[in-house]
Amino acid sequence: MKNIKIILEYDGTGFSGWQFQPRQRTLQGTLEDAIKATTGEELRVTASGRTDAGVHAYGQAVNFKTESNLDERAWLGALNHYLPRQMRVQGVEEVGPDFSARFDAKGKQYDYIIINRAVPSPIHRKYAWHVGIPLDFEAMEAAARELVGEHDFTSLRATDCDSNTPIRELRSLEVIRDGDRIRLSLKAGGFLRHMVRNIAGTLVEVGRGRFSPEDMKTILEARDRTKAGPTAPPQGLYLVKVEY
Amino acid sequence: MKNIKIILEYDGTGFSGWQFQPRQRTLQGTLEDAIKATTGEELRVTASGRTDAGVHAYGQAVNFKTESNLDERAWLGALNHYLPRQMRVQGVEEVGPDFSARFDAKGKQYDYIIINRAVPSPIHRKYAWHVGIPLDFEAMEAAARELVGEHDFTSLRATDCDSNTPIRELRSLEVIRDGDRIRLSLKAGGFLRHMVRNIAGTLVEVGRGRFSPEDMKTILEARDRTKAGPTAPPQGLYLVKVEY
Repeated sequence: MKNIKIILEYDGTGFSGWQFQPRQRTLQGTLEDAIKATTGEELRVTASGRTDAGVHAYGQAVNFKTESNLDERAWLGALNHYLPRQMRVQGVEEVGPDFSARFDAKGKQYDYIIINRAVPSPIHRKYAWHVGIPLDFEAMEAAARELVGEHDFTSLRATDCDSNTPIRELRSLEVIRDGDRIRLSLKAGGFLRHMVRNIAGTLVEVGRGRFSPEDMKTILEARDRTKAGPTAPPQGLYLVKVEY
Repeated sequence: MKNIKIILEYDGTGFSGWQFQPRQRTLQGTLEDAIKATTGEELRVTASGRTDAGVHAYGQAVNFKTESNLDERAWLGALNHYLPRQMRVQGVEEVGPDFSARFDAKGKQYDYIIINRAVPSPIHRKYAWHVGIPLDFEAMEAAARELVGEHDFTSLRATDCDSNTPIRELRSLEVIRDGDRIRLSLKAGGFLRHMVRNIAGTLVEVGRGRFSPEDMKTILEARDRTKAGPTAPPQGLYLVKVEY
């Protein structure tokens, strides 16, 4: 029995998210189909975490246990042969029997892309959030600084988040502007459900002047989801990297 | 009669190129349909030039003459209401009666995006050319410098190009690397048919070692399309800007 870890890039457009669901086109189900086509095995894979419908990944990490003796190179070729073009395995590594892509993850990086200009961009429409109101970039940067560190993120997690603690340490939150494109880059040991999209939605409220950067403290202290901004749409979100 | 100039951004995926063709989904035909939906007029628009199937534009320039009294703001709103999400008008300007988007163009900028790594990128698959062989970036930069200036570009234009002269002045050709992404940025008074894609295909041949940078001179002097590299695929090409 081999334990295989893969790094998967995907365009989440047109998928019902990561998690397997019968009769839905999911990323997990599609990967499991490609494994079945390769070795005949019907198995369940383990990802570092789920991503929602429409969310993209440059570096989702996944592991699965197989009876097959295929080497790393053969796995890469075979899976990329059977996967649709929306998904590509970027790396394969045989790992120890106890490795779990979910439980051994030590950190993650997510990016969130905003296009800030009057008219939406046709080219980026499935790969960024279009915000038509001019945003105050400096205010967003200042607000981001308030969120870095260890906090109770109850106000910024989904109300149905099932993590048993709302405490997370946000290691960094960069706000990078390049013309009309704003990239939020976040690193943490782990994230709560919808945490990145809720942070993006809240920072945009700061950028448009509904909240001040100082309001971030009050929002966190309230521990009340309704005090923060809306959940930003999924197509701006990218799981960039998982650290082990 | 008003003469209206618009700046159009589009995702060329799924269109049979710019030029109107009966029973084909073309960018020109789709824009003309949106004008008809706005004012009832059946008219022909003039673009700065055609783009091929799958080619994108951030700033295609177009003009058309209309009996309508709509102002610039109303045109922007109405056209963007009727256009599909793959196309968005980014600007509207009323211009003098003699202005032609085609004949008054003083210069153009095109970008060509290459993703250079072993496995293709699902996220960029419709927006870049994937080259799996490692490219020598410095050699591509040196070759690019050989192409800048006024030259006979016969070796780098489509054999069916109908321009009456193969002479063009390439004002600049930047080669910009950002991780595994290489962006070629080209400026000229005008370009020949397939010129940018043929330059991209030829620079990739330099990057993989088939040609040396010094070969660019021989290729230009040969005035023979078969001496240069292949035509790079359309999805990496962007019409960025037209100058007037």
